[in-house]
Amino acid sequence: MHERILNCLKSKSEHVSGEELSSLLKVSRQALWKHIQQLKDAGYDIVAVPHLGYRLVNSPDRLLPFEITHELRTKFIARKIHYFDTVSSTMDSAEELGIKGAPEGTVVISESQTKGRGRLARSWHSPKYKGIYLSLILRPKILPGATPVLTLLCAVSICEAINIACGLEAKIKWPNDILLQHKKLGGILTELNAEMDSTRFVIIGLGLNVNNDKNSLIPGATSLKEHNKHQLNRIQLLQEILRRIEANYLEFQEKGPSSIIQKWKAHNITLGKRIKLTYHEEYLEGMAVDIDKDGGLLLRNDAGLTQKVTSGDIVHCR
Amino acid sequence: MHERILNCLKSKSEHVSGEELSSLLKVSRQALWKHIQQLKDAGYDIVAVPHLGYRLVNSPDRLLPFEITHELRTKFIARKIHYFDTVSSTMDSAEELGIKGAPEGTVVISESQTKGRGRLARSWHSPKYKGIYLSLILRPKILPGATPVLTLLCAVSICEAINIACGLEAKIKWPNDILLQHKKLGGILTELNAEMDSTRFVIIGLGLNVNNDKNSLIPGATSLKEHNKHQLNRIQLLQEILRRIEANYLEFQEKGPSSIIQKWKAHNITLGKRIKLTYHEEYLEGMAVDIDKDGGLLLRNDAGLTQKVTSGDIVHCR
Repeated sequence: MHERILNCLKSKSEHVSGEELSSLLKVSRQALWKHIQQLKDAGYDIVAVPHLGYRLVNSPDRLLPFEITHELRTKFIARKIHYFDTVSSTMDSAEELGIKGAPEGTVVISESQTKGRGRLARSWHSPKYKGIYLSLILRPKILPGATPVLTLLCAVSICEAINIACGLEAKIKWPNDILLQHKKLGGILTELNAEMDSTRFVIIGLGLNVNNDKNSLIPGATSLKEHNKHQLNRIQLLQEILRRIEANYLEFQEKGPSSIIQKWKAHNITLGKRIKLTYHEEYLEGMAVDIDKDGGLLLRNDAGLTQKVTSGDIVHCR
Repeated sequence: MHERILNCLKSKSEHVSGEELSSLLKVSRQALWKHIQQLKDAGYDIVAVPHLGYRLVNSPDRLLPFEITHELRTKFIARKIHYFDTVSSTMDSAEELGIKGAPEGTVVISESQTKGRGRLARSWHSPKYKGIYLSLILRPKILPGATPVLTLLCAVSICEAINIACGLEAKIKWPNDILLQHKKLGGILTELNAEMDSTRFVIIGLGLNVNNDKNSLIPGATSLKEHNKHQLNRIQLLQEILRRIEANYLEFQEKGPSSIIQKWKAHNITLGKRIKLTYHEEYLEGMAVDIDKDGGLLLRNDAGLTQKVTSGDIVHCR
């Protein structure tokens, strides 16, 4: 009912009379008034003017499921959204849902995370109402070894969405960092639940700094707000991310990984650079020459030998 | 306490007096009597002879954890055992434990499964007290793409254990069937929980037909009892399987996959045969010429082209 009231109010730029709303939604004036109070409690700025009716002045800065699905127009991504004010990690919630059989496209969103995590068991700082923290369940019919391309796909989708929604040029640092002017804006974490020869589900996790103020960012990090100089509408950005993920995923399913790889290359800032790579106790240095169809980085060392690396942290040399 | 009583009784071939037991275990005669009753209720055949004491005549045919760990002598495999009379699937229980952080080597054993499963969502017939149904949690420090060799490792270990415990020559059909005289004796299912570039845990599931009677076996299946003509001691066989898995796993960690691959080749009956392979809608036919270091099967077709296959069902042509 809340969703329907909001849709009615959103569809009009002027006041809607209580009588009209009651009749449209087939509820009593008394029941309508109660729902309006509940929406106001949830942060919706709804004014009631005598003889004119109700008007929606402002929506709260929350990633509420019915706000996200409103005019989202995706086929299967985010048709089912699990929304939390706080969770330990959206990845854990999504994993539980995945094991229980949640359909492809199911999304877990939380306004904050107490144990948000990044790659290799690192933490992800997830302050409340500031960022986008989500996990998405996909069930691709591909071998477990072919799933790393989904990380690239998600990185590409985020860059595209940021460009559409904010007009900013985010870049990708191999394998999964989203950068803005060489500072970390977001990260992607992909987890896999599989048999040896079939993927059961993949969870793609995204942490993105949106409205974080400069003084609350950790060193080396940035937010979209820091560049845009004003508060962003997280809903619009999130919708665009979900749309781009769906579009790229459908393209990947139809045509394979090559077009994703091409787009990734267009957004990346690692290829062509000299890099240092560390992974556990290993250390490599060389030129990042290409990525292969599985998302592995091809590194040419000073002896001219090219080696494929699939994991680790890299530093771009100046 | 039950374990300590049994260990005392097992260490003597003759009667142990109640007085001696009470004093060794530091419990009253009354408490001892109660424990003995409980053990008898659990199926232990313990006789009490006046003036002589207690004697263990027979142990029940159950895969009880303290029976398994008795003289097992492994370093980390099965140091922690979760035992059930019935579960839906030991894989599900192990997955839950793995997510909660259960240590490497943790084993889930059940006397029966209501939804025992095999590869590609097939079922595994798991009649009570007849077979060995277990899932083992491993946490190898390898990339997700390198984990299929663990399936081979487990298949090799089972063949070795069957040879040691029963003197029978089980064979491996690619990728994970354990055969005895061309009939299916067991299967291995390996599931993966991972990030794109690091393995969190692997669950190796084993279903093995041990004491199944001929008339209760599904067509094409066999049991060890059918060949040995007498009831087998499941505990001894299971202990040997766990010991072989640990030995091979330690060897794999130290030396990499090559010795596992060599042993697999010695036990397999697929290589050198003409095979037909189906996977989803794909169909291939050719000569199985080799497996690679990741456990993939190399298939040479009639045009002389060699192709690597990592999944599917194969039929050995006559």
